[in-house]
Amino acid sequence: MRQSQLFTKSRREAPKDEESLNAQLLIRAGYVHKEMAGVYSFLPLGLRTFEKIVGIIREEMNAIGGQEVALTALQNPEIWKTTGRFDDIVVDNWFKTKLKNGSDLPLAFTHEEPMTFMMKPFIQSYRDLPKYVYQFQTKFRNETRAKSGIMRGREFMMKDLYSFSRTQSDLDAFYEQAALAYERIFERVGIGASTFKTFASGGVFSKYSHEYQTICDAGEDIIFVDESKNIAINQEVFTDEVIAALGLEKESLVRKKSIEVGNIFKLGTSFSDPLGLTYKDEDGESKPVIMGCYGIGPGRLMGTIVELLSDDKGIVWPEAIAPFRIHLLSLGADEVTDGVYRTLTEAGIETLYDDRDARAGEKFADSDLLGIPYRIVIGKRSAESGQAEVKRRTGEDVETVSITELSAYFQNR
Amino acid sequence: MRQSQLFTKSRREAPKDEESLNAQLLIRAGYVHKEMAGVYSFLPLGLRTFEKIVGIIREEMNAIGGQEVALTALQNPEIWKTTGRFDDIVVDNWFKTKLKNGSDLPLAFTHEEPMTFMMKPFIQSYRDLPKYVYQFQTKFRNETRAKSGIMRGREFMMKDLYSFSRTQSDLDAFYEQAALAYERIFERVGIGASTFKTFASGGVFSKYSHEYQTICDAGEDIIFVDESKNIAINQEVFTDEVIAALGLEKESLVRKKSIEVGNIFKLGTSFSDPLGLTYKDEDGESKPVIMGCYGIGPGRLMGTIVELLSDDKGIVWPEAIAPFRIHLLSLGADEVTDGVYRTLTEAGIETLYDDRDARAGEKFADSDLLGIPYRIVIGKRSAESGQAEVKRRTGEDVETVSITELSAYFQNR
Repeated sequence: MRQSQLFTKSRREAPKDEESLNAQLLIRAGYVHKEMAGVYSFLPLGLRTFEKIVGIIREEMNAIGGQEVALTALQNPEIWKTTGRFDDIVVDNWFKTKLKNGSDLPLAFTHEEPMTFMMKPFIQSYRDLPKYVYQFQTKFRNETRAKSGIMRGREFMMKDLYSFSRTQSDLDAFYEQAALAYERIFERVGIGASTFKTFASGGVFSKYSHEYQTICDAGEDIIFVDESKNIAINQEVFTDEVIAALGLEKESLVRKKSIEVGNIFKLGTSFSDPLGLTYKDEDGESKPVIMGCYGIGPGRLMGTIVELLSDDKGIVWPEAIAPFRIHLLSLGADEVTDGVYRTLTEAGIETLYDDRDARAGEKFADSDLLGIPYRIVIGKRSAESGQAEVKRRTGEDVETVSITELSAYFQNR
Repeated sequence: MRQSQLFTKSRREAPKDEESLNAQLLIRAGYVHKEMAGVYSFLPLGLRTFEKIVGIIREEMNAIGGQEVALTALQNPEIWKTTGRFDDIVVDNWFKTKLKNGSDLPLAFTHEEPMTFMMKPFIQSYRDLPKYVYQFQTKFRNETRAKSGIMRGREFMMKDLYSFSRTQSDLDAFYEQAALAYERIFERVGIGASTFKTFASGGVFSKYSHEYQTICDAGEDIIFVDESKNIAINQEVFTDEVIAALGLEKESLVRKKSIEVGNIFKLGTSFSDPLGLTYKDEDGESKPVIMGCYGIGPGRLMGTIVELLSDDKGIVWPEAIAPFRIHLLSLGADEVTDGVYRTLTEAGIETLYDDRDARAGEKFADSDLLGIPYRIVIGKRSAESGQAEVKRRTGEDVETVSITELSAYFQNR
């Protein structure tokens, strides 16, 4: 894409009311727009990165047998009354609106109830199990404070997968598969080394659950990490009993601030019982379906990556989720650089081409702020000598590459 | 995809409270789930078709220079107060909710105001124009009656593009480009021949606008069509003056029921004036940006296609948007058909494989209901003779094709 055509521009200053580093950088770089506290729109470059994260999650969910659907934000209140969660005392962050006839209409803050109810006509027999269903859907949560940028919004997208199994052991086996898929996701988006499977409270669903926590000073959680064993315990369940049950030792656990980037729950029959999601077993006996749920917020993941990897110059995107792989800068050498842009684009190498009529200093600063993995600079002199300067966003070294060999250079790495 | 793995099943009967043909068929075929009146979730096959429609619209918007963003559902009320549209008397179908502090929070029924406001930091000079920005975003509309299935929902996705131009003639030129893009979209999704550019009222935005109306008895609109000139007039502006202005003759215009599948508006400065979206001209003078907006609902398009093309056996999908291109039925010949499925899939031909343990009659009825363009049947006898039976959903003729030549047969058409 030619940067002169892109409608967004970067800015020197973030809005004064924006406290979080991730939103400050994303707004400055023109990736997101702040609609209000906790509500962010995605602009072209931000949407590209967001969709790449979504694409990676989708691939991993499909790989473990997930079938994609899209449920709604507006919800039938009767379904939520069945489990007691329609009550504002039980769930304190509902957004509710009203139909013309005055009846309450809730906006989904999660989808366990409607997903369980939706499956009823499709699950009758043990032969219909197991099934795994997921979606990328907007959740609405009435947060009192919303100061973590795109990491905790009032409106945000969640990937939520629900598993429907016949037995507890079937659930247990799938739960392990889902855990491995989650590890692949965090690895692929570039935060695998900082992200730990964390033993945590199950909240209202179950005694225990697992979270994926990324070590980061901007985090709101506290975990105790055993790096050698690649496991952690959330402060909320950090007891001698839990430490012993996990075969860990208190001395080797290090206290860290962290961000919850995913969670997996064994729901058991918490939803299938009240909503009547049952199946007929081989002997004709009716049994409740055993459920699990598995959540990741692609926006929170994006915010976490910004918090974790950015430096004092700006954002640093891992290659798999960068909006473009290459940022190509022309410094007064438009004719030669136009040709390089065409060549790279035709070779399928995603390139943002800074063809703007702007000073070199501005282009360099913008490039660092945007955080695209590779920067190629072509100036007047380098154009004459047929050489381009290639630099990684994360390094200081500048490599000189022949302009005619640029495509091959990037295709081979 | 193997149908035995798909979690949805078709049903003989639609829900009793569902009045619209499109939702009746889509629910029976397992494409959508009715959450409540006017609120439908998309299930795996339905989501595939929906996403194909989205993909076609996206390609055409990108082709005319559109840049994709994703704005939010939750809205800053102050922006809407600027244009007067926050008032429930001015806009009678708002859904509003409340923040914890008790202040009103609206759910977007459209996005002119936030889109105009969002552009302010990015448009300063004439050099920043023109720009074209679009999104696929959920709209929430508090409809009193919601009885048209997925054609008119309380929650639905809209593609809305906004153009930002320097002059009226720049807007006029882009408006014509957008109109051509819309015509390509309706052609590609299979309703081009039934869809007419229709002269209509501009509502609150402008005196006149254009709608795209698809002739269909399930429609809520009345238009007067001149088929030879490929143009129509909406009843709401069907006056002698308009007929004459368009160079038409009353006698050659035929009254038809129709569905509005898209609309394009010249907004002028209706939003840039109150929201202060201005640019500095070459002489340093500040001028309001001239805007246009261009809407298509992919869900309404999907519903319209079902209404228009279905027959008494079920849905009929045009090939470009069918969830799969081929429905492969094994009638007791699983071993041979497994191989055919692998071959077709490896050749990149999208195939739904009915490998279920079900009677032939059920498989045939299901196949007609699902509406996939080509049906391939392999039975015991045909497996032995190495032949498959190929039939189009829209035809009666059954063609015999050698099993070894099936891939080539479909790759060449």
